[in-house]
Amino acid sequence: MSLVDSVSQHIPQILPPFVFEPSLLPDSGAMRGCVDVTFDLRHAGRRDLSIGWESVGPIDAPVVFVAGGISATRHAIASATFADAGWWQAQVGVLDPQHLRIVAIDWLGADGSLDVPIDSADQADAIAAVLNVLAIDTLEAFVGCSYGAMVGLQFAARHGTRLRQLVAISGTHRTHPYASAWRALQRKVVALGQLQCDETHGLSLARQLAMLSYRTPEEFGARFDTEVSIEGGRARCAAEDYLDACGARFVERFDATAYLRLSESIDLHRVDTSQIRVPTTVVAVAQDQLIPVDDAYALIEHIRADTTLRVLHSRYGHDAFLKEHDAIAALLREALVDVCGVAA
Amino acid sequence: MSLVDSVSQHIPQILPPFVFEPSLLPDSGAMRGCVDVTFDLRHAGRRDLSIGWESVGPIDAPVVFVAGGISATRHAIASATFADAGWWQAQVGVLDPQHLRIVAIDWLGADGSLDVPIDSADQADAIAAVLNVLAIDTLEAFVGCSYGAMVGLQFAARHGTRLRQLVAISGTHRTHPYASAWRALQRKVVALGQLQCDETHGLSLARQLAMLSYRTPEEFGARFDTEVSIEGGRARCAAEDYLDACGARFVERFDATAYLRLSESIDLHRVDTSQIRVPTTVVAVAQDQLIPVDDAYALIEHIRADTTLRVLHSRYGHDAFLKEHDAIAALLREALVDVCGVAA
Repeated sequence: MSLVDSVSQHIPQILPPFVFEPSLLPDSGAMRGCVDVTFDLRHAGRRDLSIGWESVGPIDAPVVFVAGGISATRHAIASATFADAGWWQAQVGVLDPQHLRIVAIDWLGADGSLDVPIDSADQADAIAAVLNVLAIDTLEAFVGCSYGAMVGLQFAARHGTRLRQLVAISGTHRTHPYASAWRALQRKVVALGQLQCDETHGLSLARQLAMLSYRTPEEFGARFDTEVSIEGGRARCAAEDYLDACGARFVERFDATAYLRLSESIDLHRVDTSQIRVPTTVVAVAQDQLIPVDDAYALIEHIRADTTLRVLHSRYGHDAFLKEHDAIAALLREALVDVCGVAA
Repeated sequence: MSLVDSVSQHIPQILPPFVFEPSLLPDSGAMRGCVDVTFDLRHAGRRDLSIGWESVGPIDAPVVFVAGGISATRHAIASATFADAGWWQAQVGVLDPQHLRIVAIDWLGADGSLDVPIDSADQADAIAAVLNVLAIDTLEAFVGCSYGAMVGLQFAARHGTRLRQLVAISGTHRTHPYASAWRALQRKVVALGQLQCDETHGLSLARQLAMLSYRTPEEFGARFDTEVSIEGGRARCAAEDYLDACGARFVERFDATAYLRLSESIDLHRVDTSQIRVPTTVVAVAQDQLIPVDDAYALIEHIRADTTLRVLHSRYGHDAFLKEHDAIAALLREALVDVCGVAA
């Protein structure tokens, strides 16, 4: 493990929740903080880093670490203290902060200040550093989706003694050359946009291209008309309003450098699955354009522990974890049945 | 039909082949020319247009019109006169200028001078205008691939009395909303590039994005490594050299305005299939990311003539017509068995 032992641990908000913003609501065991560490990044050498984290739920409850895609944040589930909806709010029925302690981080690089190649292994080590500071020895489960699943696999390979089980949804041990090519072109679009003064233009377009890879022809066929109009002397397709809106929302909250480095991090990802000795549930989506189901088969082949593979069918493709609320909830309940407080 | 009857027909090269560049080689019945007409374009009103055409093979042989994708040209098959390889040279065994007269055009808009919305119906009318000038009353077959298949369907609907049979490969009566969205984003990348002084950058990137839609994850998985290197502080994926080369080759021979208008023309395409009364062979590719096989089923449903549907399986997806030489040759032989000179 390349983590340098806690050279600096600046943790002003690490004491019990009432120190922060106390609330009388029962789910208020919520806290946030930053962990400052010095790290040997896999591809970029030693760096001083600050890792933002959030924890919601009783401090003595079983701990589940949750990780989403590259645009997800430490705020997965709302609480009285941090009341805006989390990125995985739809799963609050299973990831219930009444019974579980849900921990998450902001990805290394998410603030755009780390302009170097970032590896999924670096993220796994960042999570381990946060757990050290929070005095969490062992996770009952790591539930990761998309990039979060990749990081979960790295965590299982690198810090497996601290993990009882992994749930990896729509992410595998390596990236597929076609998916990598698609992301590489998105990054080139961002770079083209950066030649302008306003880099949001390219970033918006890259996000729109990414949306095509996250979703499927089936969804677009059901959702959008085949009619194409002519506006201002140019053809305008039915999906363009939707895609424009996706791009505009994204550039409001995301930085171009962060996008470039986290997109790249997906492509740099690779795990030796024979190093994983943690019981693992793998969820693949048959229609996922980025993660072929064959790669999910290859993933479970060499894991040295119990594995379960579930293949969902969803017109939402790679985004099924954000859209197929009931199916994902059922899978999570099944996987987490042994974690205290999750009703089967 | 919106074609205005031959207001001007500037046809310096329209007399028999020996007028042009005579050759003693048997396949030398090759000629090229331009037809100048005034046209009511479907979306852009009356325009003076020049339509480039090429014909190869005996002037009295059965005539097969051939049309490819938006980047194809009038030069489909090499001849002694025009000796460089044509875009469909691989099919010379079936489209044999010893026995057939092969006619093709340069698409309206292909030279970049027509910066208005262009409809596939306009292309069909342009073909009819060329046939008028060449005194070709009836085509034995129209063989179209991709955009050429769309134009073939328009020709069958608008000029069906001049056509004995249609072979439509990887193109249907309408475009799919997902494919349209993909092309719309490619056009936005070109537009982003046009904000620079050098518009080839955006055009190259758009072509690279288009290549992903023409090919498949299966091909990329078999062809490119999963390893990603770091070069100059940036991740570089295995397919990037290939894609860069595709983009560079494309911008050498294609104009940004032509690309924008012909890409758009695909999205504007729509044919009322109940207007088609010509025997039609439809070839779909199961792995085609732009033309779902379901749309091929929908295409043949309302054609009022004999229809044959063939579904190929190819890792080359939409580009199968350019890559699966033997399978396409077999399909062409089967479809054209009644056309004089094609051996079954």
